[in-house]
Amino acid sequence: MNIGVLVSGRGTNLQSIIDASENGRIKSKVVVVISNKKDAYALERARMHNIPGYFISSKNKSPEEYDAELIKILENYNVDFVVLAGYLKILTNMFIEKYYDKIINIHPALLPSFGGKGYYGEHVHEAVLKAGCKVSGCTVHFVRPEIDHGPIIIQKCVEVLDNDNAETLAERILPYEHESLIEAIKIIEEKNYMIDGMRVKILRWNN
Amino acid sequence: MNIGVLVSGRGTNLQSIIDASENGRIKSKVVVVISNKKDAYALERARMHNIPGYFISSKNKSPEEYDAELIKILENYNVDFVVLAGYLKILTNMFIEKYYDKIINIHPALLPSFGGKGYYGEHVHEAVLKAGCKVSGCTVHFVRPEIDHGPIIIQKCVEVLDNDNAETLAERILPYEHESLIEAIKIIEEKNYMIDGMRVKILRWNN
Repeated sequence: MNIGVLVSGRGTNLQSIIDASENGRIKSKVVVVISNKKDAYALERARMHNIPGYFISSKNKSPEEYDAELIKILENYNVDFVVLAGYLKILTNMFIEKYYDKIINIHPALLPSFGGKGYYGEHVHEAVLKAGCKVSGCTVHFVRPEIDHGPIIIQKCVEVLDNDNAETLAERILPYEHESLIEAIKIIEEKNYMIDGMRVKILRWNN
Repeated sequence: MNIGVLVSGRGTNLQSIIDASENGRIKSKVVVVISNKKDAYALERARMHNIPGYFISSKNKSPEEYDAELIKILENYNVDFVVLAGYLKILTNMFIEKYYDKIINIHPALLPSFGGKGYYGEHVHEAVLKAGCKVSGCTVHFVRPEIDHGPIIIQKCVEVLDNDNAETLAERILPYEHESLIEAIKIIEEKNYMIDGMRVKILRWNN
């Protein structure tokens, strides 16, 4: 698959995809990286791997205009699969319809808990800690119009420790995000799944 | 601690407490079992271990009158700790205030997901499957007036399999419930914890 990665931040999940692609663990390639933040370090990572990187400014654009620009770039690079790797801008329904079942998102908690509006970045982990949870984790799911909602491909659990703060918890979860994302892409590029309502079923377990 | 166990069903969690008490893993003892269902098999289990068992009918009683009867029996047996082991009747605030921080509940999912009104028994597992979750688990928490809400002592994760139905998932989670409940009672009877808002912190890890 030709993957387009949408990012807003430092891009460690982007890096894990690039690495898995370069070392052959997945066959798909990241062909373009697009950020809604000008100074996202993810764009620098793209450059270092000779992957085209774009910043699209939101200034004076409706969400629809913004996503139309996004689509134009994705089409230029023949992107057939989109990964949201810490992309904090809300996608329009138009975009989601266009890439239906072709967009995945990684979320740093066990959805449906701690998802939805306002639950991004460290706010997720702060909420997990405030709720007193003893486990958290991460979720890779197909994207549907409702935020942080959609058929789940992979979830992994991570222990919450008594002395955790949002930062230490985020750090402990991050490697599981990387691994989950690669496992999910592998499942999808091998067409090793079917979607049944909200359930994603794996056809063959061959890892 | 003298434990009073409230039940509505077959009482496998009750059994795990009785067993842990008899084999010395916990020091506390179940001194009375009370059910809101006449034919709860849990009452039969109590009898087999010579533990007094009571059925209290809800008929023609307000929730407050019901819980007043409950308290009377618990006080007769000098109960200082209450375990809800599949107890499907909603406790009054009066009861919860009286045993504040002295009541725990076991819930067969990873709260705060899949908790609250209507989420009991197989309905919990049906909802987990319908949401397409790849992990579920169980939660032992102190009881607060809001249903399935309160400081969490233990959570354990359990994998959801592609071919699971509510029954197979419930069965896979059940042993984790038993283990979690015993671990939680051990932590509490050893006063090996402190409650800080919604977070329960373990003072010494000595298992």
